[in-house]
Amino acid sequence: MSVAMLSDLLTEVLIPVAAVVGIFFSLLQWHFVSKVKLSPERQTRGAHDHGKNGYSDRLIEEEGINDHNVVVKCAEIQSAISEVEGFSTKSQPCTYSKDRTCKPALANAIFSTLSFLLGAVTSIVSGFLGMKIATYANARTTLEARKGVGKAFIAAFRSGAVMGFLLAANGLLVLYIAINIFKLYYGDDWEGLFEAITGYGLGGSSMALFGRVGGGIYTKAADVGADLVGKVERNIPEDDPRNPAVIADNVGDNVGDIAGMGSDLFGSYAESSCAALVVASISSFGINHELTAMLYPLLISSMGIIVCLVTTLFATDFFEIKAVKEIEPALKRQLTISTALMTVGIAIVSFIALPSSFTIFNFGAQKAVKNWELFFCVAIGLWAGLVIGFVTEYYTSNAYSPVQDVADSCKTGAATNVIFGLALGYKSVIIPIFAIAVSIFVSFSFAAMYGIAVAALGMLSTIATGLAIDAYGPISDNAGGIAEMAGMSHGIRERTDALDAAGNTTAAIGKGFAIGSAALVSLALFGAFVSRAAISTVDVLTPKVFIGLIIGAMLPYWFSAMTMKSVGSAALKMVQEVRRQFNSIPGLMEGSAKPDYATCVKISTDASIKEMIPPGALVMLTPLVVGTFFGVETLSGVLAGSLVSGVQIAISASNTGGAWDNAKKYIEAGASDQARVLGPKGSDAHKAAVIGDTIGDPLKDTSGPSLNILIKLMAVESLVFAPFFATHGGLLFKIFWNGK
Amino acid sequence: MSVAMLSDLLTEVLIPVAAVVGIFFSLLQWHFVSKVKLSPERQTRGAHDHGKNGYSDRLIEEEGINDHNVVVKCAEIQSAISEVEGFSTKSQPCTYSKDRTCKPALANAIFSTLSFLLGAVTSIVSGFLGMKIATYANARTTLEARKGVGKAFIAAFRSGAVMGFLLAANGLLVLYIAINIFKLYYGDDWEGLFEAITGYGLGGSSMALFGRVGGGIYTKAADVGADLVGKVERNIPEDDPRNPAVIADNVGDNVGDIAGMGSDLFGSYAESSCAALVVASISSFGINHELTAMLYPLLISSMGIIVCLVTTLFATDFFEIKAVKEIEPALKRQLTISTALMTVGIAIVSFIALPSSFTIFNFGAQKAVKNWELFFCVAIGLWAGLVIGFVTEYYTSNAYSPVQDVADSCKTGAATNVIFGLALGYKSVIIPIFAIAVSIFVSFSFAAMYGIAVAALGMLSTIATGLAIDAYGPISDNAGGIAEMAGMSHGIRERTDALDAAGNTTAAIGKGFAIGSAALVSLALFGAFVSRAAISTVDVLTPKVFIGLIIGAMLPYWFSAMTMKSVGSAALKMVQEVRRQFNSIPGLMEGSAKPDYATCVKISTDASIKEMIPPGALVMLTPLVVGTFFGVETLSGVLAGSLVSGVQIAISASNTGGAWDNAKKYIEAGASDQARVLGPKGSDAHKAAVIGDTIGDPLKDTSGPSLNILIKLMAVESLVFAPFFATHGGLLFKIFWNGK
Repeated sequence: MSVAMLSDLLTEVLIPVAAVVGIFFSLLQWHFVSKVKLSPERQTRGAHDHGKNGYSDRLIEEEGINDHNVVVKCAEIQSAISEVEGFSTKSQPCTYSKDRTCKPALANAIFSTLSFLLGAVTSIVSGFLGMKIATYANARTTLEARKGVGKAFIAAFRSGAVMGFLLAANGLLVLYIAINIFKLYYGDDWEGLFEAITGYGLGGSSMALFGRVGGGIYTKAADVGADLVGKVERNIPEDDPRNPAVIADNVGDNVGDIAGMGSDLFGSYAESSCAALVVASISSFGINHELTAMLYPLLISSMGIIVCLVTTLFATDFFEIKAVKEIEPALKRQLTISTALMTVGIAIVSFIALPSSFTIFNFGAQKAVKNWELFFCVAIGLWAGLVIGFVTEYYTSNAYSPVQDVADSCKTGAATNVIFGLALGYKSVIIPIFAIAVSIFVSFSFAAMYGIAVAALGMLSTIATGLAIDAYGPISDNAGGIAEMAGMSHGIRERTDALDAAGNTTAAIGKGFAIGSAALVSLALFGAFVSRAAISTVDVLTPKVFIGLIIGAMLPYWFSAMTMKSVGSAALKMVQEVRRQFNSIPGLMEGSAKPDYATCVKISTDASIKEMIPPGALVMLTPLVVGTFFGVETLSGVLAGSLVSGVQIAISASNTGGAWDNAKKYIEAGASDQARVLGPKGSDAHKAAVIGDTIGDPLKDTSGPSLNILIKLMAVESLVFAPFFATHGGLLFKIFWNGK
Repeated sequence: MSVAMLSDLLTEVLIPVAAVVGIFFSLLQWHFVSKVKLSPERQTRGAHDHGKNGYSDRLIEEEGINDHNVVVKCAEIQSAISEVEGFSTKSQPCTYSKDRTCKPALANAIFSTLSFLLGAVTSIVSGFLGMKIATYANARTTLEARKGVGKAFIAAFRSGAVMGFLLAANGLLVLYIAINIFKLYYGDDWEGLFEAITGYGLGGSSMALFGRVGGGIYTKAADVGADLVGKVERNIPEDDPRNPAVIADNVGDNVGDIAGMGSDLFGSYAESSCAALVVASISSFGINHELTAMLYPLLISSMGIIVCLVTTLFATDFFEIKAVKEIEPALKRQLTISTALMTVGIAIVSFIALPSSFTIFNFGAQKAVKNWELFFCVAIGLWAGLVIGFVTEYYTSNAYSPVQDVADSCKTGAATNVIFGLALGYKSVIIPIFAIAVSIFVSFSFAAMYGIAVAALGMLSTIATGLAIDAYGPISDNAGGIAEMAGMSHGIRERTDALDAAGNTTAAIGKGFAIGSAALVSLALFGAFVSRAAISTVDVLTPKVFIGLIIGAMLPYWFSAMTMKSVGSAALKMVQEVRRQFNSIPGLMEGSAKPDYATCVKISTDASIKEMIPPGALVMLTPLVVGTFFGVETLSGVLAGSLVSGVQIAISASNTGGAWDNAKKYIEAGASDQARVLGPKGSDAHKAAVIGDTIGDPLKDTSGPSLNILIKLMAVESLVFAPFFATHGGLLFKIFWNGK
């Protein structure tokens, strides 16, 4: 075994430096955005008025509720863990190297809880700040749009970058600090240290249940409700200030797309880092106490922040957007540049931070790995992400034939539009699945479950850029909304619409990244679960595993049925309220009276919390029930089944929805001969396209992305309870089948 | 080991007797139907005119094409097999008992081909006769409807029974005769004999590719095309004789629902029988040459025919339908009665035909099994079928709240209708999957893969009743069409509509049975494949298997994208032709000129054959490519992945489609206060419901049921090529990864 080139001391310095640089960079971006001064008269009424009363207060309030739930949930999980392990206060032999002494179980429980809280708080703070900057940026983007599309683009993109860098850098910094503080207590017991750190991943991921599922229900209840009455019944434009649900819709964009996406990706990031660390701690890195090699996952993320920083300059400083048609290429260029640079970055980190050969824990055995093999693991994850991104773009952007075909099918009505849209979504699954399969195969073959975890990290290493272009979407969308509400000229609205159209595609790309990384992370967690539960094989040919597999493959359907139904019911409530206001508030349609925005916001807020419970319960209870009554083999089957089935539904749902949305925009824009034949707004084909768009809303923003949470959270929960299930689980078989 | 009560001689007599009784019974039913005399004036024009020129000729012609393809495909498969095994003409040691001598490979190849042809021909003949009697019955059902709903019901049901009994009895008889003829050559070599017999399953299943996929495209291209122009653009009623696509639509109902469903179920029946037989031949039954026990699967099917015969009398003789609302309960009663009687039947067969204890081959080892355990295997399959049937009914019949909720959501337009419909389909998956999982677990635990195969047979043991109530649907549907075209009174049309509404639900139930049995059959074939390829475990924790699993789970999406797109394109062609005729044939709308039905039939026929090629190629090539380049472990993953993912899509697609169809009918019928608020025909809510119905057409009749074929055919093809893949497969790994 050789040692790494990079010294431990330098590692200890470089990681926090990168994190701090990231945070500083995001503050710098914020500073740039804040230089866009909102003029005084707008501050007291109009756009900013909504910003003050409509957004911030509500958001804080909603976060407050989440915060409380977090504590309760955390206490529950912790108390469950307490019962399981009995909590010895004495030192105990380590799980993987029995001849060593590890810290007592009670200490592990306390530190796990701490890191759980840290993960949860970091997720909330990042999401909260992201929403803050997004709402802060909306009006500024609108104002910049008066100067030109290039200025508006930079304002929106910088605001997205604030979110991206804050999340990536906070995630890294908190994790780094936690490791160093925990080390004061754990000392040489790295196995215990990094097992305690896994709480960070669980904490981050649990918040995503609120952000993604709750946020998804919130945003689409408002959106669908607003559209059904406003656009369809009352024939008023989208984002018209007379529509009582319009503020709830705008708030929802921030909750669902910014906080939801942020918490989802943060969860994946935290979980894959933790999964890699815990495997490394029982590999040669941990056994030989090689700190630099041990912190390889964090070094990759540090490099990612620096790479994304340079990449961002390409969008904001090196090039300038002069025309509408340059927007989408500029966003895509961000992905390509960051991927290309990061490949070099990964190579550098892999060669200076890793010894040239080492061993990695692989289901009970140690597997010899070379540093270049690990480079390939991370790089293939990174490039798989790019492939997924571009395939998603091909299937959801109206610059290509798939969406144009869908738009064309609107000629024969909504039914053919839906049939073609569903078929498009199904088809769009093929290449991403091959990309994921190849990365799994390569990274698995090279470095077992550690390889999978770092492949996930590779895909997420450009998270700052990914989130920037993703958050850019809802910011532009709301900028358009504010232009509409503030009664700005048609030209301004056209510019924000162009920004928004590109945002639809980047949102789909972001979702592609999110699901791709969720798949890899879940697999890594699944591997960790299997190791911890001491299962050596998960054999499909045993009935216990097979029934798990088929039931696991069913869970995403059950979960989607719940979330879609939730959106449907919440939207119906919203429709009733909006109708009531139109009927009962005199002068509302004429614009002389103001609608009661607050009630609509309350409906969305209440619905998102209430309707989140059944799908949340399904996610949280399934591993417990299966593990306790059917045991670890069946649970393995359930995890594998839900993973392989959920990925497909998530990808197809989000691409189908994105395609319908852009098919509608394609007809509305009327930029080609084909589009002009189908349009204009209000034509039969356009009406058919609107129906598709509405159907796609819950698919792409609620049920589809929520599946990421289903597969990740079930895996991480199983991991936490693995020792309990392994010893006490499988009650049903023990009772009725004598453990057969 | 004890011996069975039933003597071998009696077994040899009872099976053909049951089969002949079944055939005779179906002829008797035909005789009853044929007593409905078509009056002479109708014979020369009107309903029968279409019957003569529109249906029969075309059907024969289309069958002819299939027939030719069969021979070609069969030759291809056979020549592929030839190359694989080298074909020794000398006797060789048996695969599973090396100390015995088995017949030479060439003989096995010849007999496999023979049984393949027998399976294919039996499937075609049964399907052809089924379509014959269906077209024969359409007009007669219409005429009987003049006398009352009870008479019409009996005519339609008896015609369905002809199809059901013919198929069940032919399938059994041909298989029985083949076994007995093959025995003349094979003598004591039962391993070789029953391996040669598996060709029968492959033959039956291959035809289902044509029936289900081709038939599915045929019927929905015509249906969607006819509706889009006729109902939506021209505002003429469904089945109006002025619509040029109306005959193609009616022919399509027979091709898709009767021949397609028949060939699918026949394939499942043949495959599960063959899978059980081949496992039995290397278990104690085969080793000890216990003929009666060996033929247990056939005895179960024989008992099934007798039980269904008695059950049919309940519908046609013991009870009488007096009112419209009695139709659906009468059909459901058929299911319950046949299941209850069959449970007793299974018990009898299990106790008289099986020794009280014996051993079953289980992945290389022999597992001790008792006869009552086998009873449970078969019975749980049977009851799982009933559960699936009733759950399907609950989710697709408009007598219950799920469909009523979907209908209600039409108030807010097509978008909410589609969202609620999709959510309903997802939800409807839950209980059937649990039912399948329980039957898999019980039968797998009791008797390994043999248990799974006989559980599938248990589910299919009431196939005659299942097909009767399934075929009843399209017969009633077309009877309604003929009433419309022949210009009969409104009252007659109402009666046939009532028959048809019940038929929609029973069609969904039939699809539930088909997919449930397909899942069990595929699993049994998968087990057989694994045994033949000499794999001892299929471990999800190896990268080779996992990538197979995730890619396998993707295949149903790819396949569905293809079939849905096929329907879409074919329907667009149909739309253009129908529009062209309306525009260019003077007097067509006024009814003074006749449309050119033949061109529309030709479009459907051509489209179904052309568009069938890509999905067909995906099914046929995937096992070959995966097996050759990635080897048997990855192929195992692909089979398991496509099975667990495909079942879910198939169930949800067919139930979503069924629910939309009946939600529309619910609004049209206006039988409740809620329905009257939503209706009448032509209201906004009704228009929204029509859109849902059109979207559901390809889901429920093409892409959904076609997935049965995907999972079954891939499994059986893998089984055929297993020895080749095991020795020569996995090229890619051998070259690049040194077999890692």
